[in-house]
Amino acid sequence: MISKYVFGEPFETEAIVVDIEETKGTLPYFKQEAGAFVLDLAEEDIVYGLGEQVRGINKRGWQYVSWCYDNPHHHEDTRSLYGAHNFVIVSGSTTFGVFFDYPGKLTWDIGYTKRSLMTVTPEKMDLKVYIITGENEKDIVKQFRGVIGKSYLPPLWAFGYGQSRWGYKNEADIREVAQNYEENKIPLDSIYMDIDYMEDYKDFTVNQERFPDFKGLAQELQGKGVHLVPIIDAGVKIADGYDVYEEGVKEGYFCKNADGKDFVGAVWPGKVHFPDFLNPEARAWFGKKYEQLTSQGIDGFWNDMNEPAIFYTEDRLAETLEKVSTLTSGNMGINEYFAFTGMVAGLNGNEGDYDKFYHNVDGRMVNHRDVHNLYGMNMTRSANEALSRIVPDKRTLFFSRASYIGAHRYGGIWQGDNKSWWSHILMSMSQLPGLNMAGFLYTGPDMGGFGCDTTEDLMIRWLQYSLFTPLFRNHSCDGTRMQELYRFSTKAIMGEMIKIRYALIPYLYSEFLKARENDEMMFRPLAFDYDDDDTRQVDDQLLLGGEVMIAPIYKQNAKGRYVYLPEEMMCVRMRGWNDFECATFEKGHHYINADLHEMFFFIRKGCAIPLVKPVMSTKDIDYSTTQLLGYEASYVLYKDDGISLNNDGKLEMYVLE
Amino acid sequence: MISKYVFGEPFETEAIVVDIEETKGTLPYFKQEAGAFVLDLAEEDIVYGLGEQVRGINKRGWQYVSWCYDNPHHHEDTRSLYGAHNFVIVSGSTTFGVFFDYPGKLTWDIGYTKRSLMTVTPEKMDLKVYIITGENEKDIVKQFRGVIGKSYLPPLWAFGYGQSRWGYKNEADIREVAQNYEENKIPLDSIYMDIDYMEDYKDFTVNQERFPDFKGLAQELQGKGVHLVPIIDAGVKIADGYDVYEEGVKEGYFCKNADGKDFVGAVWPGKVHFPDFLNPEARAWFGKKYEQLTSQGIDGFWNDMNEPAIFYTEDRLAETLEKVSTLTSGNMGINEYFAFTGMVAGLNGNEGDYDKFYHNVDGRMVNHRDVHNLYGMNMTRSANEALSRIVPDKRTLFFSRASYIGAHRYGGIWQGDNKSWWSHILMSMSQLPGLNMAGFLYTGPDMGGFGCDTTEDLMIRWLQYSLFTPLFRNHSCDGTRMQELYRFSTKAIMGEMIKIRYALIPYLYSEFLKARENDEMMFRPLAFDYDDDDTRQVDDQLLLGGEVMIAPIYKQNAKGRYVYLPEEMMCVRMRGWNDFECATFEKGHHYINADLHEMFFFIRKGCAIPLVKPVMSTKDIDYSTTQLLGYEASYVLYKDDGISLNNDGKLEMYVLE
Repeated sequence: MISKYVFGEPFETEAIVVDIEETKGTLPYFKQEAGAFVLDLAEEDIVYGLGEQVRGINKRGWQYVSWCYDNPHHHEDTRSLYGAHNFVIVSGSTTFGVFFDYPGKLTWDIGYTKRSLMTVTPEKMDLKVYIITGENEKDIVKQFRGVIGKSYLPPLWAFGYGQSRWGYKNEADIREVAQNYEENKIPLDSIYMDIDYMEDYKDFTVNQERFPDFKGLAQELQGKGVHLVPIIDAGVKIADGYDVYEEGVKEGYFCKNADGKDFVGAVWPGKVHFPDFLNPEARAWFGKKYEQLTSQGIDGFWNDMNEPAIFYTEDRLAETLEKVSTLTSGNMGINEYFAFTGMVAGLNGNEGDYDKFYHNVDGRMVNHRDVHNLYGMNMTRSANEALSRIVPDKRTLFFSRASYIGAHRYGGIWQGDNKSWWSHILMSMSQLPGLNMAGFLYTGPDMGGFGCDTTEDLMIRWLQYSLFTPLFRNHSCDGTRMQELYRFSTKAIMGEMIKIRYALIPYLYSEFLKARENDEMMFRPLAFDYDDDDTRQVDDQLLLGGEVMIAPIYKQNAKGRYVYLPEEMMCVRMRGWNDFECATFEKGHHYINADLHEMFFFIRKGCAIPLVKPVMSTKDIDYSTTQLLGYEASYVLYKDDGISLNNDGKLEMYVLE
Repeated sequence: MISKYVFGEPFETEAIVVDIEETKGTLPYFKQEAGAFVLDLAEEDIVYGLGEQVRGINKRGWQYVSWCYDNPHHHEDTRSLYGAHNFVIVSGSTTFGVFFDYPGKLTWDIGYTKRSLMTVTPEKMDLKVYIITGENEKDIVKQFRGVIGKSYLPPLWAFGYGQSRWGYKNEADIREVAQNYEENKIPLDSIYMDIDYMEDYKDFTVNQERFPDFKGLAQELQGKGVHLVPIIDAGVKIADGYDVYEEGVKEGYFCKNADGKDFVGAVWPGKVHFPDFLNPEARAWFGKKYEQLTSQGIDGFWNDMNEPAIFYTEDRLAETLEKVSTLTSGNMGINEYFAFTGMVAGLNGNEGDYDKFYHNVDGRMVNHRDVHNLYGMNMTRSANEALSRIVPDKRTLFFSRASYIGAHRYGGIWQGDNKSWWSHILMSMSQLPGLNMAGFLYTGPDMGGFGCDTTEDLMIRWLQYSLFTPLFRNHSCDGTRMQELYRFSTKAIMGEMIKIRYALIPYLYSEFLKARENDEMMFRPLAFDYDDDDTRQVDDQLLLGGEVMIAPIYKQNAKGRYVYLPEEMMCVRMRGWNDFECATFEKGHHYINADLHEMFFFIRKGCAIPLVKPVMSTKDIDYSTTQLLGYEASYVLYKDDGISLNNDGKLEMYVLE
């Protein structure tokens, strides 16, 4: 059951798409104290959820802040990442779900200040709170997902392997990547284009010098089953003669200062205006611009910098430089030095800058700060809604960096600018259940790590984990070690792992479709399915769909790991898609060995999964090569044509035996 | 056997204190290629050592750089921390030790660029390389430790609990800490004083306004068994009328620019000169200054900022500000913005600044860059050598941040400015074997974490690990959450953990003395004592002395952990010093439960350890309360009076039965 409580005058976020009548009376479970909602936690209570945040599956023991933030430092002490996913389930002495539908800054103190208290504090007391009770955690999630709308459906090819890097500067760079994968017989479905492809970082432009025949390149690669996926940033460059800039100014589609002038921030293109994605007209206008690329054969996009990231604002920079000149004139003391360096470091992502601009919401000027967490969601919505008109017959790949619950209807998200750290394999895995709870099914991390230098063994172990996530993309930052798989001496091992992915795609896609159709989670904590004390402790294994448990190795130099089986399962150890063996293990704790070239996962008791012969691109997947792997059992396969915009009526179900 | 190979014209580091004849001929194991030493690694080889570096006990899979560096970010991608400990053991297909005695920058590529190669590259080919072969890893360490000199011997009270924080500003703050520990009946042996106590951050001064009766305070606390331990920084403030500055200038004891003028850097005091610790006269002069504090009752010091840290140099700041004014004048583009912020961020610890100054070594001007890693070592040597003359009859506590092998003779080291991260418990533990290999026995981390905000559960689990490390200090950074134990709602649990420490001190001190006397490691990887494949995989458990294995819990919300026992052992689970139970576990893998208020460790088969009744300060330890814990066995207890400068002739050994 879902009960809705209204406090003050909430802003309509559109997270909830079903009419729910307001419950009058006192909010259950929580005490209201000094502008906060306070909940007693029993020692054994687990708090699941919060989506894209650091730390473990159990969010207890830290203070988190829902504030979409361009933060490339996903450290243990990080309080905000790119998304704001305000749905949690408290599980233990009593079990219930709660969604704080609040688009501004929301602070979650989950046993941080005091171990036995969870304190949730909105910046203003204008919000809706939904309490969800149900039979168990899965039922609570299903009810919640039922009222936030069906998750985004990507094309099948978005389940293939993607290669990305900030640094592919021209057609030759792109062709080199495609060619090397082809020569090394490593499957590939997409190549991502970071900001390098644009002309002066102007959205919807292509640099003509470095990409003289963009359309031709896109067609040539599509012929090989490889899709080009360009990035689109939120900020629109201030540049005379640039259509997006000029139209936006003319029509009043950009966010405004208090004085009504267009707000100026600076990001990759230098000075920019920010489209007012909360204004439906501006949203429709910006969305149409994607046609400039779809008309050249593009059928996938990733939306970035849409927290929105702000490197600096004109006025703060001016103030800072003025103060800097005061501080640095004469004999600079150490306090002045730290004030100076601190001010300079504080330009980027400065929270105060988000107070400075306004959205036009039905003619009302709304301060950005109060609706900050809706910006990225509405950028992806802009693209999605426009493209369903521009290309009404097929799916376009979309994923975004910033998000709020509701954005899951318009696209996926990737897990942001992580690093080539072993601990970030586990961080990605720990976020999956919370993201699935919030409706984000199409997601995954930058494999191999975005920032910092990767290593061969990290790349391999990361692949072994990531080959289960819907988004399966290798991405890295300009200036770091190159990490296209063909560059490594162990590329043969890596190629085998990619082939295992392709053998698994029918299964992964089927489980994705089931999770979407049935408002379920594709990735779940073990304790959502098995209820015993040992299971509740497991924080580095996940259930995948109805049949699989994953338990990847995420420690350097480890040749195995501990795994807890909540019941008998079959361990599948794979060196290649057709080089594997299966062994049954009993319920309990086990240490499973696996050298670097081996990955393993588990099939649940009495279950089987389909495996197909891998191909070089998803377009060639041949379902007729399907074999069942696992116990003597049947499997219900969900499939559709993988490309129609809406799969209603196209969804097929087969019982495989 | 130890063989010495000489390349070029090495600088004499004084790491090795025994005359070893040079071996002519080719260096074994390594190929020499393009200014580097290259070793083939077999897939199963493990590389132990490198002391204070990030990542696991097995150093394979990363590139490390020996370059003493004030780096508060101990991230996975960190290449340099505060120490340079160039001794490793390659264990596997062949097993040997190697020490690269080189005081400049040395790069270790241990299977990073290519998994099967270790490449060691000195900046200049002027060094000594020592190859150590032996029966096994322990024998190799013992031989190496035999030629680098006995490890520093701290006073017994240095094994007690210490409370520290950057931010104790006056006598009242210090008294408040002492009083709260007393009132809460939590044992305490020392309170550390960070830079706040000084007058304008001038070494050897005490702010008279905030500490009007420093001597009285020191005496009052000593009466309660609490020692005050002030910090001493490397940089000497440029300030007229300040004796250390004026004498140093007059005598020419500071590091010089190429033009012969005193080099100017900036650290906490603002502009400073750096004492030339490589000049024996300067060393003796600076060392004598400690008397200004010992004469007021101080008997312990920590030496900091001695990499040396340089926040900025005058000329680089001037250059930067000039470039900044160019960049920021007019319409600043995004490239100029990043150049600007990058330059400002690059002022601190800029490697180029270390080329700018010189040491006077026997009248010869030696560029700092070539001997950089010896600076911190010789600062602690300065203090140690002077104090053995000033206070010839008793030990002074010393530990340092920067170090090189050889520094272990003069003091301990703490593991630097870590963070309140769960992963930093494991990082500390992973460093212990490498530090012990290099002679650093007196060491430990900032418990609870220095940077960032701690949590109650992190503090408790960290205590449960740290109560085994010789240095046992809770330290935190100004501006972070206060973490004195009495501030937490779970202070009763924390107090019990401290009492367990005090019950264990006779054992820990005894094993420390044995390791020191016998040139052994107090903390060892399991594979140094047990030789099987499973044991070689263990990276989060350590052997302690002859009798104990530690396996702390270092994950948030975990109520247990996996442990591998290489043979039968006895698990001791403690909630308090006299609230515990013992259970025997067989060889193999186990999951051991332990709620937050419980810690556990293991006693090796056939062994027993002494436990005494805890007291409020080490001065009251009563050996007559000793009981044996563990198997039916005897224990050889090492003890001395805990305070005489040299324990020769004072060392006593008892067989406890």
